[in-house]
Amino acid sequence: MNPEPVLSPAERLRRQVAFIAEVDKLKEIFRQTIVTQSRRAENSAEHSWHFALMIMVLAEHSNHQPLDVLRVLKMVLIHDLVEIDAGDTFAYDTKNMADQHAREAVAATRIFGLLPPDQSAEFRALWDEFEARATPEARFAAACDRFHPMLLNCLTDGHAWQKHGITHDRVHARNAHVAEGSTAIWEYAVRMIDEAVAKGHLAPGPK
Amino acid sequence: MNPEPVLSPAERLRRQVAFIAEVDKLKEIFRQTIVTQSRRAENSAEHSWHFALMIMVLAEHSNHQPLDVLRVLKMVLIHDLVEIDAGDTFAYDTKNMADQHAREAVAATRIFGLLPPDQSAEFRALWDEFEARATPEARFAAACDRFHPMLLNCLTDGHAWQKHGITHDRVHARNAHVAEGSTAIWEYAVRMIDEAVAKGHLAPGPK
Ligand SMILES: [Ca+2]
Repeated sequence: MNPEPVLSPAERLRRQVAFIAEVDKLKEIFRQTIVTQSRRAENSAEHSWHFALMIMVLAEHSNHQPLDVLRVLKMVLIHDLVEIDAGDTFAYDTKNMADQHAREAVAATRIFGLLPPDQSAEFRALWDEFEARATPEARFAAACDRFHPMLLNCLTDGHAWQKHGITHDRVHARNAHVAEGSTAIWEYAVRMIDEAVAKGHLAPGPK
Repeated sequence: MNPEPVLSPAERLRRQVAFIAEVDKLKEIFRQTIVTQSRRAENSAEHSWHFALMIMVLAEHSNHQPLDVLRVLKMVLIHDLVEIDAGDTFAYDTKNMADQHAREAVAATRIFGLLPPDQSAEFRALWDEFEARATPEARFAAACDRFHPMLLNCLTDGHAWQKHGITHDRVHARNAHVAEGSTAIWEYAVRMIDEAVAKGHLAPGPK
């Protein structure tokens, strides 16, 4: 293999700006959750911002301390870029979840490939780390990524749960891995979804 | 003055979640720029995400090296929260810019005040640092905050410039401080806005 050519700073900047322009498309990828005020569908760019802010605010609740918050933020800021090509997969959509990772890996190759080679490799490694959920940083990111839609659903009378007929047992099972990143956040979430059941916003599961 | 009471971890988490729920409102604050695909108005939550991703991608172009990228990302993630109360002020709206900082400071007190006291103080210090533009981190953040809408305008045929009758001389004057954070990004921006004039997307200024 030929070594990668060294890019000039000007060519690096040109590629970086092309990447920044391309990822504007994440603002058009809509999720099943809705925003609290106008109750329209949330998009993945907004979600990524809210999720990153949660990392900043909640880092103290990570089971593992100290956490490399910079690496968590980087993972979070790029974690959904693959949806530009692969679309958003709803957390309870078991059919589309089957080949989700394969579809997203193809997207990662194209989208991160717009960057200079060193950054393309760095971004791919961050995305792989997030997906593998094997480091404390990835486990805490995964915890907040799951807590975020649960919180928005609770703040909007269970909107996405109601729409898709999701029951309490499924919410509990799908999100229990939050505890691997943060016991405190999972305990909070368990109380929150119990309250959603009590309020009639989330249907109880089969007895 | 009484010392601040020490909050329990559970009470800290309760306040932090209340803050996270409140800031969902940033998704309803609309800017003058439009997104590239559907050409609807961009909101400040999406802008904050795109801006944070730009920091990650472009940090090497900061005049000052090494940069504390974690502190820049934290500033960027919170920089627009004050708009929840104060609204977005268009960069060329000289009338509303006069009391913008005063209005935003009142908002900062309320919104950051939802957090536990230590985080409230940390977030206020980050916002003050961003606003004062006196550190390398704040200057680089300011450079990307200005570059972002210029880039979106160039990608949308000069939409916000055309709508408000903004001319090349005003764009140049308003954004020249980008060079304080990054000479390379400013040079790129100068070529980009010159091209926008050549394409007829940005009106030349008075001769
Ligand atoms: Ca702003």
